[in-house]
Amino acid sequence: MPRVLAFDVNETLLDLKALDTAFEDLFGSAAPRGPWFAQVLQLSFVGGITGSYVDFTTAQRAALQMIAERQGVSLSEQQIDATVALMTSLPPHPDVPEALGRLAATDLHLVALTNSVQDVAEQQLRNAGVRDLFAKVMSADAVRRLKPAPEPYLAVAAAFDVHPGDVRLIAAHSWDVTGALHAGCKAAFLRRPGAVLSPVGPQPDLVAGTLTDLADLIVRRDCR
Amino acid sequence: MPRVLAFDVNETLLDLKALDTAFEDLFGSAAPRGPWFAQVLQLSFVGGITGSYVDFTTAQRAALQMIAERQGVSLSEQQIDATVALMTSLPPHPDVPEALGRLAATDLHLVALTNSVQDVAEQQLRNAGVRDLFAKVMSADAVRRLKPAPEPYLAVAAAFDVHPGDVRLIAAHSWDVTGALHAGCKAAFLRRPGAVLSPVGPQPDLVAGTLTDLADLIVRRDCR
Repeated sequence: MPRVLAFDVNETLLDLKALDTAFEDLFGSAAPRGPWFAQVLQLSFVGGITGSYVDFTTAQRAALQMIAERQGVSLSEQQIDATVALMTSLPPHPDVPEALGRLAATDLHLVALTNSVQDVAEQQLRNAGVRDLFAKVMSADAVRRLKPAPEPYLAVAAAFDVHPGDVRLIAAHSWDVTGALHAGCKAAFLRRPGAVLSPVGPQPDLVAGTLTDLADLIVRRDCR
Repeated sequence: MPRVLAFDVNETLLDLKALDTAFEDLFGSAAPRGPWFAQVLQLSFVGGITGSYVDFTTAQRAALQMIAERQGVSLSEQQIDATVALMTSLPPHPDVPEALGRLAATDLHLVALTNSVQDVAEQQLRNAGVRDLFAKVMSADAVRRLKPAPEPYLAVAAAFDVHPGDVRLIAAHSWDVTGALHAGCKAAFLRRPGAVLSPVGPQPDLVAGTLTDLADLIVRRDCR
């Protein structure tokens, strides 16, 4: 029975759509924003597979350079700095404050578990007005292995002195759900627009389209 | 000094554009073809990171289901089979036969090194009319670790009884180049349209826009 809820942050709680204006300014269109975040993840994953750790901020900067090169656009260091800095001030999705508040009022422990580096993660949640709902903000950077590697999920279990099966990840990313389940945790999938589960491997026991609905399911399943 | 040239196959030698008609038939547009292949890679990489191997054919099928779900399209098993089967009959990029033929005439050993499973890889190269130019066709599936994990590159070195530094990967994918360099091999990057290098980590010593130009560079650098 999960006792700890570990929330993914980027896209799950916070809306990357807030970057669209910056992408429009840089590239004349917001369309490269999705490929940019996919490239961020790919660089992170390649770092994990090749044993050459790439922190999430470095991946964001590098991916922006790659997308710019692909678009035939030259970006200054200042433009890259300014765009990546926007990650610290993403707004929460509209369903987040109420649903998180409700879960924080249960006897479950809430933790943010993110690939963002620690100071970015703290700023992100503070700016989104939800920092105080979390007992801890944990960055995968602390173990120098980004999700979906097992270490970040196991670090949550260790921090709360519980078994991995007592931790439930909540995420809008199939790769994050896969990682949590392979680490022995539970998972709940948040079907944000465009987010789909992988049919490969173990599946989460809870799935919903909004964090409001997912909170209902979690309360029914995990609260005694 | 490289003595073995290990060629990536999909996108580097063979043109995935040949799938566009099938994507148009399934989704009304070829646009999801790029996101599909990116999803194939992500599923493969997540398999590597979580220690739950996903073979490349399984990843292709699963990614097609995910793209279909994202597009709100329902695909039959037959449609998935037929689309994935097209991977075996991709045409070579126009620069491939002549450039490969030229390199095969040097004293360098040519090997195909692909994430495709073995029988698919053999069919791919036979159908493209270039199978006989390779001394070996090696699938990462044989070591159950897909590129960019080090094992497939090291398997090439082992197969030819050379040091990793005697193997040069040729690929149109930054993640493949990163993997080869981290495994201690050399790399040459083929800048196919849309392909860009990652600025993170070690860089290849040879880069060109066509395999013809890359073959020139390889001959000058690697042939005594």
